[in-house]
Amino acid sequence: MENVKVAIWGFGAMGSGMAKMLLTKKGVDIIGVCDMHPARAGKSIFQVLGVERGDREDVIIKANIDEVLTEKCCDICLCATDSFTKNAFPKLKSVLEKKINVISTAEEMSYPQAKNPELAAELNRVAKENGVTILGTGINPGLIMDLLVVCLTGCMTEVTHVEAKRVNSLSPFGPAVMEEQGVGMKIEDFNAGVKDGSLAGHVGFIESVNMIADSMGWKVDKFEQQMAPIVTTVDRKSPYGFAAAGDVAGVNMTGQGYVDGEVKIDMIHPQQIEPEMEGTFTGDYITIKGIPEVNMSIKPEVDGGLGTIAMCVNMIPHVINANPGLKTMIDLPVPRAIMGDFRNFIDR
Amino acid sequence: MENVKVAIWGFGAMGSGMAKMLLTKKGVDIIGVCDMHPARAGKSIFQVLGVERGDREDVIIKANIDEVLTEKCCDICLCATDSFTKNAFPKLKSVLEKKINVISTAEEMSYPQAKNPELAAELNRVAKENGVTILGTGINPGLIMDLLVVCLTGCMTEVTHVEAKRVNSLSPFGPAVMEEQGVGMKIEDFNAGVKDGSLAGHVGFIESVNMIADSMGWKVDKFEQQMAPIVTTVDRKSPYGFAAAGDVAGVNMTGQGYVDGEVKIDMIHPQQIEPEMEGTFTGDYITIKGIPEVNMSIKPEVDGGLGTIAMCVNMIPHVINANPGLKTMIDLPVPRAIMGDFRNFIDR
Repeated sequence: MENVKVAIWGFGAMGSGMAKMLLTKKGVDIIGVCDMHPARAGKSIFQVLGVERGDREDVIIKANIDEVLTEKCCDICLCATDSFTKNAFPKLKSVLEKKINVISTAEEMSYPQAKNPELAAELNRVAKENGVTILGTGINPGLIMDLLVVCLTGCMTEVTHVEAKRVNSLSPFGPAVMEEQGVGMKIEDFNAGVKDGSLAGHVGFIESVNMIADSMGWKVDKFEQQMAPIVTTVDRKSPYGFAAAGDVAGVNMTGQGYVDGEVKIDMIHPQQIEPEMEGTFTGDYITIKGIPEVNMSIKPEVDGGLGTIAMCVNMIPHVINANPGLKTMIDLPVPRAIMGDFRNFIDR
Repeated sequence: MENVKVAIWGFGAMGSGMAKMLLTKKGVDIIGVCDMHPARAGKSIFQVLGVERGDREDVIIKANIDEVLTEKCCDICLCATDSFTKNAFPKLKSVLEKKINVISTAEEMSYPQAKNPELAAELNRVAKENGVTILGTGINPGLIMDLLVVCLTGCMTEVTHVEAKRVNSLSPFGPAVMEEQGVGMKIEDFNAGVKDGSLAGHVGFIESVNMIADSMGWKVDKFEQQMAPIVTTVDRKSPYGFAAAGDVAGVNMTGQGYVDGEVKIDMIHPQQIEPEMEGTFTGDYITIKGIPEVNMSIKPEVDGGLGTIAMCVNMIPHVINANPGLKTMIDLPVPRAIMGDFRNFIDR
């Protein structure tokens, strides 16, 4: 049986991390990589990753996707290029039209019907027309604040309220994340950034809320979210971030999904550098009210970077095996670590 | 669209609990119940359940399954009659042959390929031949010590060891469970009961271990389990159980799955009455070593009775929608609480 063939579009932290993970696995080959960043395009992935090539064929990073993908040239393309469906859409569509399955890391793509129902319908149509499948996933959205919640409701006869809380540290992240999340900003600048939309914060609440609600048959009739600065009272320093006392150490995101006029889904996601310095300990917490109640915690929180890399790679067989169309995590079998030969996970 | 039609075979604690749950849901009807217990056969389910019939059609419990099921008379039959595949097999087969989907509460049916590969293959064949699907599920096996473990490995690039621990209280259970688990026995009698196989303990370790391993592509080359008495140092009393100081308050089950000669999966499941009396607090704990590590806890433990009832009812749509054959929890989309109209969860 032939190895599973994977292409990767976008070779930043996520795309290159997936490549590194794939190189440790059996029965799967990376057949092409696209990234237009001048520091990477034209180089061997082994050189960029700092991994021994061994007896593997070399893979040169191309700046142009047309040099990487031709019709049915591989089983799946991992697209790690965007956060928003609107921006990812033309790329995703072009891959589907080459009759290649897709996994997207774009946070909004975890449940694109929430914000872009027309684009979601179009991706579903194009995927079906070409006999392939597209899925958006990651650690969050994708697992921690949505799929895991859904899975835990499975043991309940009745659900009245869901609270998902992810308290994580931004300390391991680089300068781009520091900037996006407002680390080190003055409070006024942070608030201005929220107002003009230049501060991203966490992307994914509306997707998680709708995934949870739809999975159970609840209808979200209103969604709201808030972004507040986490102001530190002490100086905090991480490898790529610094927040002086009185400035912003991170962002506290909160979101609410209303069902029948009531808040039935609460999302709470404070992220900051060095949370322990002021007594905040990281973790993932799910509290579901109903019958029976479920109170789950994961301490410390699941590492976001590794978690996203793993989710995307581990979902490859499920996506290849699925019926054609746009899928979300609630449509497919549960994710699982692929420890054996990838080929054994593929239905032939 | 017609309501989803459900039959129930076995109207003990589980079967009657599922009926009660179904009666609170929309878009689903109980069309027949079979139970040969003289206290129930011939009575209305509403009388047995103590639930108002309202404007629903009456359902009289029949002692003979042939008076309940005819070919395609309903969408699914919930079979809550047995713990072991061997005993459940003829019943399950007969339902499949009537072209009716099946959910079984039999613990061994959660992964029948582990202990009865021939019977599993035969159920798969019969189900496919009749165009229907069969699933075994429950809270454990079915979710807590297996599916939830699998789901959490999904965010890991590498798994080296799995420990699943369920510490629960037997206090809510009735006299049958007290007897099966050895509550109140002298230590010698308990040990004799383990030796001659008359003490059931927890059924499901070998199923959970194989489900976890197979999901990731590990091959279990050896499985062992142990059953030890939990001896109390104080008198413990629950509604249906009593253990004097020095006697047995419950059973501590442990199990190990070996992969490549090493223990890679550890199962730990102490169950006893009134655990708090000696400082044991209940909970479900999953610890997965690898990259990244995941340490999950649910405190207190998910209620076993309600959990099993919910899992079976909530999986109804997934089983109806699935391709024909024998399925396990790792083949189907994640369970979820069905809060909306059952009909909306069925693919037509």
